[in-house]
Amino acid sequence: MRVAIIGLGLIGGSIALGLKQANPEINIVGVTPRQETIDEALSRQAIDEGTTDLCRGVADADIVFLCPPLNLIVPTLKKIAQSLKSGAIVTDVGSSKTEIVAQAAKVTPQEVHFIGGHPLAGKEQTKFAAAEANLFQNRVWVLTPTAKTSRPATIILTQLIKLLEARVIEMKTDEHDIAVAGISHTPLAIAAALVNSVAAEKKSQANMKQLAASGFRDTTRVASGDPELGRDMFTTNKKAVLKTLANFKKSLTQLETAIKKGNTTKIKQLLAQAKKFRDEVYV
Amino acid sequence: MRVAIIGLGLIGGSIALGLKQANPEINIVGVTPRQETIDEALSRQAIDEGTTDLCRGVADADIVFLCPPLNLIVPTLKKIAQSLKSGAIVTDVGSSKTEIVAQAAKVTPQEVHFIGGHPLAGKEQTKFAAAEANLFQNRVWVLTPTAKTSRPATIILTQLIKLLEARVIEMKTDEHDIAVAGISHTPLAIAAALVNSVAAEKKSQANMKQLAASGFRDTTRVASGDPELGRDMFTTNKKAVLKTLANFKKSLTQLETAIKKGNTTKIKQLLAQAKKFRDEVYV
Repeated sequence: MRVAIIGLGLIGGSIALGLKQANPEINIVGVTPRQETIDEALSRQAIDEGTTDLCRGVADADIVFLCPPLNLIVPTLKKIAQSLKSGAIVTDVGSSKTEIVAQAAKVTPQEVHFIGGHPLAGKEQTKFAAAEANLFQNRVWVLTPTAKTSRPATIILTQLIKLLEARVIEMKTDEHDIAVAGISHTPLAIAAALVNSVAAEKKSQANMKQLAASGFRDTTRVASGDPELGRDMFTTNKKAVLKTLANFKKSLTQLETAIKKGNTTKIKQLLAQAKKFRDEVYV
Repeated sequence: MRVAIIGLGLIGGSIALGLKQANPEINIVGVTPRQETIDEALSRQAIDEGTTDLCRGVADADIVFLCPPLNLIVPTLKKIAQSLKSGAIVTDVGSSKTEIVAQAAKVTPQEVHFIGGHPLAGKEQTKFAAAEANLFQNRVWVLTPTAKTSRPATIILTQLIKLLEARVIEMKTDEHDIAVAGISHTPLAIAAALVNSVAAEKKSQANMKQLAASGFRDTTRVASGDPELGRDMFTTNKKAVLKTLANFKKSLTQLETAIKKGNTTKIKQLLAQAKKFRDEVYV
């Protein structure tokens, strides 16, 4: 089996390392614009060969993982579409799915299978240097086949991803997007806004920096992620993000009103409710 | 030196364990309503003696740490005020200071020194079982002496706290409160509201639970804290919390507007700005 991985950052690099670790027989070609990254990937034995040429990279591939920056997934797919071999399975790792899957349906040749994907395994670092073979172990990896997607193709892709020890689950694209907006994109918006609101307080900024302890560190951790990735999340998943942001603001206003009124019963009830739900999620 | 610690939860218990570890000569009396906790503290050698009687507990103490639940700090101080010996130094560990310090000034006898305090060392667990001798190591411990506070008393208290290896810093009560509202109380409000907004989405709740990864876990961690402590933070630090919450909402609206407009330049700028500030705080 020949696998092409386009983009050798954290995710693409970890897929390469993980597949090689699981089965060295899999032939992996890494495709990335930077020769340095290819050399790095070769020296860590993540790939068997590398190329900076997209079309040459995917020409004989049975399976293609699209792992470029989020906003380049569809443009990259457009570029390789005519070079894919018949029967090839193409998947991506973008964190929003509705727009990507709809666009992919338009540009993918009929004899090629596109299946949207999203491994939930982020880190602050996004480069190949941070890649690790076990990144996806026990992590959820969403696939979003549509009614038109070939079932055998989905099964083959699922088997391959399971080599990475990820937990593959299937979802509809819109269900995926609203869920990810709620648990990933909106938390990022909130974390960034919280940091910016502290930074805007020129007078107490120094004190806040001094007092910032583990609570602030954890609440804002995702704000240290890549701004371009965040921008692309908010752009490609705009509709769902705006919906979950509105829901969040409603919940916040409810708590704020209780604080304003000094309604201690209501404050405690809202906090207890949040604690209960969260403790259920992270047992 | 005889130290009385009122309230043997996470903070009071850790003070006892830490002082004993630093200097076993310090005589420590633990005061708490539950005999079981006294027995537990005695068996871990955190205290030399224990009592459920507030006034007896503080009678001969040179230094008193008030570590009851936040909303009971002032009521407890009122109860012990007349039993304190002349020259005694009393401090508290409450996470808001303006109201407590103002009330303390009213009820503390003239020959007793009250100095507001706040160690920034929270955990989700709040009971004695979670207490540890090193809880305050390298953590900030704020003291809020006022213009009227005896300097020698502040120095004695500072020396004692330094035995716990905490970094003691002094602040004005209102400066402390706005800073803590920004980096601790408002993050709690946000985390709780975020969890509640996810929990309110009956349709996608199950998907969200399934996809929730490390980002959501960290952003919402503080929402798993004690609801009563949270309630008391929002009650005793109401004014500052409402101010920092308003600032946060302004920052969030700015980002939300950029997302709505699809203004990618602005989105990236706001995210980059947040990343820069946060990376400065947590180098």
